[in-house]
Amino acid sequence: MSAPDPRLSINQATIRRADLRTALDVTRGAGVEAIGLWREPVNAVGLATATSMLADSGLRFTTHCRGGFFTVPDGDARRAAMDDNRAAIEETAALAAAGAPGSTAVLVLVAGGLPAGSRDISGARERVRDAIADLAPSAAAAGVTLAIEPLHPMYATDRCVVSTLGQALDIAADFDAAVVGAAVDTFHIFWDPDVLTQIARAGRDGRIATFQVCDWKTPLPADVLLSRHYPGEGVIDLAGLASAVVATGYEGDIEVEIFNAEIWADSPENVVQRTVDAFTAAVSPSLRRIPSGK
Amino acid sequence: MSAPDPRLSINQATIRRADLRTALDVTRGAGVEAIGLWREPVNAVGLATATSMLADSGLRFTTHCRGGFFTVPDGDARRAAMDDNRAAIEETAALAAAGAPGSTAVLVLVAGGLPAGSRDISGARERVRDAIADLAPSAAAAGVTLAIEPLHPMYATDRCVVSTLGQALDIAADFDAAVVGAAVDTFHIFWDPDVLTQIARAGRDGRIATFQVCDWKTPLPADVLLSRHYPGEGVIDLAGLASAVVATGYEGDIEVEIFNAEIWADSPENVVQRTVDAFTAAVSPSLRRIPSGK
Repeated sequence: MSAPDPRLSINQATIRRADLRTALDVTRGAGVEAIGLWREPVNAVGLATATSMLADSGLRFTTHCRGGFFTVPDGDARRAAMDDNRAAIEETAALAAAGAPGSTAVLVLVAGGLPAGSRDISGARERVRDAIADLAPSAAAAGVTLAIEPLHPMYATDRCVVSTLGQALDIAADFDAAVVGAAVDTFHIFWDPDVLTQIARAGRDGRIATFQVCDWKTPLPADVLLSRHYPGEGVIDLAGLASAVVATGYEGDIEVEIFNAEIWADSPENVVQRTVDAFTAAVSPSLRRIPSGK
Repeated sequence: MSAPDPRLSINQATIRRADLRTALDVTRGAGVEAIGLWREPVNAVGLATATSMLADSGLRFTTHCRGGFFTVPDGDARRAAMDDNRAAIEETAALAAAGAPGSTAVLVLVAGGLPAGSRDISGARERVRDAIADLAPSAAAAGVTLAIEPLHPMYATDRCVVSTLGQALDIAADFDAAVVGAAVDTFHIFWDPDVLTQIARAGRDGRIATFQVCDWKTPLPADVLLSRHYPGEGVIDLAGLASAVVATGYEGDIEVEIFNAEIWADSPENVVQRTVDAFTAAVSPSLRRIPSGK
């Protein structure tokens, strides 16, 4: 058992069974300073109550999860998706304002997969770019940063057509870095031969909107969505990736977001403490940025 | 039921339960002109018998599957792996010589994953490059082309640290194109935002050592190794990818290689006929190269 790293943020998905009240209490109770929230538990209590609960908790707010799912072609479904994303932007701004100093107004965007019956992944990717262009003015007005999250290519067709950090940065490059960045999640990008180059690029361009860590190991479970593990329990070179992120000058909070049926079956208290311990062992040693000498 | 496309080659893994005799008979019986073989069934009858059976079949030989698995660090295991790869090179040359005119001496290489206990994917990738350098003289002497096969990133840690076509081509670039090329397999690379650029590069550099098609759909089965489908039964833009390969001037045979428990449970005769039909419907229309006008 260790004291929490001050940069650790618990992403609420890691304690998925917990409602907002429980998630805030357990996170704060463990001495963790920050939390990333999900829309469903926030909306279950209503935004006004959620912001009030968050303010009372004294926790920093790090990300709102999530918007996106806008690869459908033009029509009612796309309009509904865009309206929902604009609502998510407003929620993000309100939550960030309610969080403790150092909170960040970041909305994570998972693009969505191929529309039913489509094989046109290039077309779907173009619609992501169009959707970001559509949302950027609302995000800018609200002071929210949209974090395009590349997901592992095994999710490319059914969940997220944005598959690499380079691809996310290519989309983001059309926009102000304060408005559109990328989510850097070790699980999704560690395999990429180009990952260190793209992390450096993301940092240089000011596009690391959030940094998330968890681990990968095989065999994958039957539901590959649930294949994320505590940091250090798999084979990702977390030290190398965290060092690369820190080397860019990233000084923000770092979320642990885990989807895993066994972890979800554990109590939120246990999960948060295990996350604290795993983070301290596998990530914290890499966070000491070497001074530049100036 | 359709007449087989003259460029279709049945990769023996598609009819995995069939021994070599059956595989040759069923493939020929369906009117297919070419076959790709696997080492285990070849070695089950012995190389001399296998070459004789292949010669009698009148089939073209397209690839030998497979070498590789050389990411282990220096030591006995690595030496054994390299010896085994040299044996595979000799088998490939013998089989190609025994096949009908138009046979190709191509050995497919699956690099291997992370060694047990390792998190050093960059190091494993460097060992792939070293292993290719080690094998290239033997391949050149035998007249064999080594086809580095990038596998889908979901296999990056337990099966193949080569995850993109670009990465395979970067390794191949150090060698003569007649000796080291890449395997272009739709299943493994379709998701890559850079796939069309890399196919064009592979063709321009003469590095398309083999072209393999099958399809992807979700949800993935519990064993993600077995998630390959008949062409046209999934969501890959096979027409787009096949057109891109053909546009480079690739005129070789095209293998269908499917790992799928349900397909393996079917009779080899049914599987070959279904493959013939699927290929004709989903791939053949894209193989007519538009003349350049010269």
